[in-house]
Amino acid sequence: MEAVNLKKKECKIVVAVDESEESMYALSWCLGNLFSQNTTNTLVLLYVKPPPPVYSSFDAAGYVFSSDVITALEKYGSDLVNSVMGRAETIYSKFSSNINVERIVGSGDAKDVICHTVEKIKADTLVMGSHGYGFLKRTLLGSVSDHCAKHVKCPVVIVKHPEKI
Amino acid sequence: MEAVNLKKKECKIVVAVDESEESMYALSWCLGNLFSQNTTNTLVLLYVKPPPPVYSSFDAAGYVFSSDVITALEKYGSDLVNSVMGRAETIYSKFSSNINVERIVGSGDAKDVICHTVEKIKADTLVMGSHGYGFLKRTLLGSVSDHCAKHVKCPVVIVKHPEKI
Repeated sequence: MEAVNLKKKECKIVVAVDESEESMYALSWCLGNLFSQNTTNTLVLLYVKPPPPVYSSFDAAGYVFSSDVITALEKYGSDLVNSVMGRAETIYSKFSSNINVERIVGSGDAKDVICHTVEKIKADTLVMGSHGYGFLKRTLLGSVSDHCAKHVKCPVVIVKHPEKI
Repeated sequence: MEAVNLKKKECKIVVAVDESEESMYALSWCLGNLFSQNTTNTLVLLYVKPPPPVYSSFDAAGYVFSSDVITALEKYGSDLVNSVMGRAETIYSKFSSNINVERIVGSGDAKDVICHTVEKIKADTLVMGSHGYGFLKRTLLGSVSDHCAKHVKCPVVIVKHPEKI
């Protein structure tokens, strides 16, 4: 076991970002600790949108959802993606101007999409906030990071926002 | 939130080591990813011995525990500490000859001692294996890393042994 290769290789590091300040703090931690100025590592920003809502023609009170409302909701989701990716860009561009960044936007249950993406792209490390939640607080507190820490094969870094503890 | 200080500071990084290969792999990951050759970070190796056994004069079958048995058990515990720290040294000395290393040997329930130590020494990061267990498999599978990820305030890295997944 001791014969582990300690040489740095080019790593693919996924940071799961959402609307929370904690996920932006996790990104900062990642840049400050897993990236150097001359790194060849790739930063993969992963944002998971909630699954497309199944709109019934009538809501519980019997009102019809107009297509305008549906369009507005979809626009809101798309604005959120841009907003989160924009905040992330502000952070990583301060760190280095030539960092290799990939963006992935998934859709579905956050914990499943994160685990699936990490495996699919053969990520070397997953970094995430501990209390990530997004659109409409779609997940129970803490359950996403718990789930991912248990299920992904690569090392998982769980970062807590110092002010939120 | 974006105004996070991205400059590297001198960090105190705790690696919880035990008899498992996974914890040695976690140490390797830590060195390869959180330490550079010219780092000023401090590596803190933390080993937790089980709590001192409360020896009844008689065991369940009514036999007396001789002091020889007790001494042998204590010797075994002390040998384990030396063995684990020795394996760790083999790994970090291959990485760098001038790495700043501290060793802490605690005693008690691993999850409590790890959390307490991390807070006490104001560690910046905790690195541990996901399935750590030690002497007499004293903890339930996975429960130590689960507990620590939830309770310590600093970022926690949970590393899995790639061959054990």
